[in-house]
Amino acid sequence: MEKVLRVGLAGLGTVGAAVLKSLFQNEKSPFFTNGPKIEVVAVSARDKLKNRDIDLSSCQWFDDPVLLAQRGDLDCIVELIGGADGVAYDVIHTALQSGKHVVTANKALLAKHGLELAQFAEKKGLAFAFEASVAGGIPIIKTLREALTGNRVQRVSGILNGTCNYILSRMELEGLDFNSCLNDAQKLGYAEADPTFDIEGFDSGHKLSILSSLAFGTRIDSEGVAVRGITQITPFDLKIANELGFRVKLLGVSEYLENSLEQRVQLTMIPKNSVLGGVMGVTNAVMVQADMIGELTLVGPGAGGKATASAVLGDLVDVACGRYIPPFGVAIDSLKHAERVSHRIHGGGFYIRLSVPDRPGVASKVTQHMAEMDISLESILQRQGTSSMPNDPTGRSGLAVPLILMTYATTEEAVSKALTIMKDDKLLIEEPFVMRVER
Amino acid sequence: MEKVLRVGLAGLGTVGAAVLKSLFQNEKSPFFTNGPKIEVVAVSARDKLKNRDIDLSSCQWFDDPVLLAQRGDLDCIVELIGGADGVAYDVIHTALQSGKHVVTANKALLAKHGLELAQFAEKKGLAFAFEASVAGGIPIIKTLREALTGNRVQRVSGILNGTCNYILSRMELEGLDFNSCLNDAQKLGYAEADPTFDIEGFDSGHKLSILSSLAFGTRIDSEGVAVRGITQITPFDLKIANELGFRVKLLGVSEYLENSLEQRVQLTMIPKNSVLGGVMGVTNAVMVQADMIGELTLVGPGAGGKATASAVLGDLVDVACGRYIPPFGVAIDSLKHAERVSHRIHGGGFYIRLSVPDRPGVASKVTQHMAEMDISLESILQRQGTSSMPNDPTGRSGLAVPLILMTYATTEEAVSKALTIMKDDKLLIEEPFVMRVER
Repeated sequence: MEKVLRVGLAGLGTVGAAVLKSLFQNEKSPFFTNGPKIEVVAVSARDKLKNRDIDLSSCQWFDDPVLLAQRGDLDCIVELIGGADGVAYDVIHTALQSGKHVVTANKALLAKHGLELAQFAEKKGLAFAFEASVAGGIPIIKTLREALTGNRVQRVSGILNGTCNYILSRMELEGLDFNSCLNDAQKLGYAEADPTFDIEGFDSGHKLSILSSLAFGTRIDSEGVAVRGITQITPFDLKIANELGFRVKLLGVSEYLENSLEQRVQLTMIPKNSVLGGVMGVTNAVMVQADMIGELTLVGPGAGGKATASAVLGDLVDVACGRYIPPFGVAIDSLKHAERVSHRIHGGGFYIRLSVPDRPGVASKVTQHMAEMDISLESILQRQGTSSMPNDPTGRSGLAVPLILMTYATTEEAVSKALTIMKDDKLLIEEPFVMRVER
Repeated sequence: MEKVLRVGLAGLGTVGAAVLKSLFQNEKSPFFTNGPKIEVVAVSARDKLKNRDIDLSSCQWFDDPVLLAQRGDLDCIVELIGGADGVAYDVIHTALQSGKHVVTANKALLAKHGLELAQFAEKKGLAFAFEASVAGGIPIIKTLREALTGNRVQRVSGILNGTCNYILSRMELEGLDFNSCLNDAQKLGYAEADPTFDIEGFDSGHKLSILSSLAFGTRIDSEGVAVRGITQITPFDLKIANELGFRVKLLGVSEYLENSLEQRVQLTMIPKNSVLGGVMGVTNAVMVQADMIGELTLVGPGAGGKATASAVLGDLVDVACGRYIPPFGVAIDSLKHAERVSHRIHGGGFYIRLSVPDRPGVASKVTQHMAEMDISLESILQRQGTSSMPNDPTGRSGLAVPLILMTYATTEEAVSKALTIMKDDKLLIEEPFVMRVER
């Protein structure tokens, strides 16, 4: 315990600054007071002159983070630069190459190069720790990699993007539309100036692919995640969901069965009184379903400097205590290549919002096409000219009305085929909107 | 990784049997297929002939678990016998003495001898792992000990006893009384024949004292937990709580401030729409509030053979991988002796159910006595002769009526003094019933 872990920190954004402040502050956690000694002795960031409200005088400054990673007398490099390739990759590779442990929060890099880098660390007997890469401060990586090792995991599902959950929560609670909530999220710093990565679901997809690997012992397959974003949701959909006892969440779901893996990120209706259904705002949550444990859910902050720094600090203590082998729980070579699947029957059925011409016989034709695809309908909701109708806020056009179908268990393929037939039959005025339903 | 961890298992109840079945089953988790090898080579239990539906032919049988703990060629002993002293203690002490790692699920023993045994393990450089001792399959020990090490924890609160939460859930949802729900819990195997340990809160108290130690870096002080059970609750209280937007839970709460520690287990009103408020049935949950993470909540199965076995198996993999130092996160000698406190102001206020004479002027006197103790009332609810009145199911006696007071922030001491004055003033027909309110 008397040994000091000498750390080099690359990247001083909100997370990096929070890590430094925590390590430098006078009143530390019992683990830092009495546990292993961790000292940040070198840092690197883009702008040396930026005011970060931290005294960096005890740290050597590097303009080039790769040079920092090469410095001889460091034990561990913390990479908080971000980005799937480029400098972040070079920093991590250089650090491992030169015999240093690595801690990172970089999910994009993990999703793309995680296994290669973990294998490199494995060969060198070094730590490659990435708790901060998924769901911020929620210790889901450690839970899957270490706590649930006695389980065969069947399913991982989660609310993995705080930006999206904030937007959906505001839309539901205040009846606002997507764009005004996105604007607010940007003003509050919950969304980037270019929000594509979050609102189109890619960020959740990267995180899900990392969780799948840890949960099922499979190779990371981020390109195998079927990703759909949240931009098509309307206050009308949220209102209907609410009436039916549901909330709408951007849910990442990963299911493993007989070496085939289904990974998807899409808007999903979840019962309001479920644990995940109660998760509002920027909070994240991950549920694990497994043979021994049944269901385990972790709810906490998915982003933010301090919460993410909490995960980085936990990793640093693990490294300092020698609790870091192996990075993915088992040897990288033993991870399976799972087959991608997307055609399974979804037991909870689907919510389908159509925009149809306001004339007699349309509902009958729509339901007939569903029946042709062997899709049973649980309910059909037709709202005539309501002001909450999507894309027709005045309700005065009279040209289109929304028609909501709730199906019983069926496949996404069957739904898709039925919708194509309806399009061909000129029944759809706008693109249909589809969500899965979890019961 | 090629090394085999040779395990001796003492105690073959529901948890022990589930551990064995999992290790013996053909289709194992990826960690057991590709991770460290774990073999149970010797077992001990009270009754060799009991049918457990497990083939024990590959295991050496010991009638005496202490002899099992002495056997020379074992690496690790799993203690699942239970009990704070006696055989369980002897088994663990003998195992450590003879250089073996220990995994246990024994919260009563942990609460009483945990630090002494952990210190013994520490000196010997051995594992002393006890994830299964608190909240069954929920990995809250690992979370506090390893994941949140960068945090100063301020508060831990949790629903730590599945029996109590089952009874409270049934009472609320079905309007049943305490005794019939307890009987059902016993029939279903959720409660022991002698349920005292669960329903009087002692089990939750033991678990809370273990969590406090890990959260705050303080010595385990299970005798410092102020414990009250759930036997005084009535369907009437649950109905009132429900009307006010709350649920009633047996909540363990531990708060640490400036080296003073308040630990309590008592019935508490929690907002229905909070994460803890949504936890129903035998499910457990633990919330951690800390400076970096904010709030983190873990929800999962708090008991049951398989869920508890999940925690034991996770500990075994940790031991096999060498991830076991130190047992309490920091050296036992560095744990602080915190001062016990119980006099802090409770921000959420109190729910007080009085049984008062049904005559004019009583409410006025009651509120006057509250005011004398500087207790501000948020609301006063008087229900005349309702059939749901506690201890007067017919509502016909006309002698006593319930009077419900909801206070603003105050201390438990002030409430207690006010109630004593009311008793002296002959205003109370029955013992008053008090719950804390969490907002």
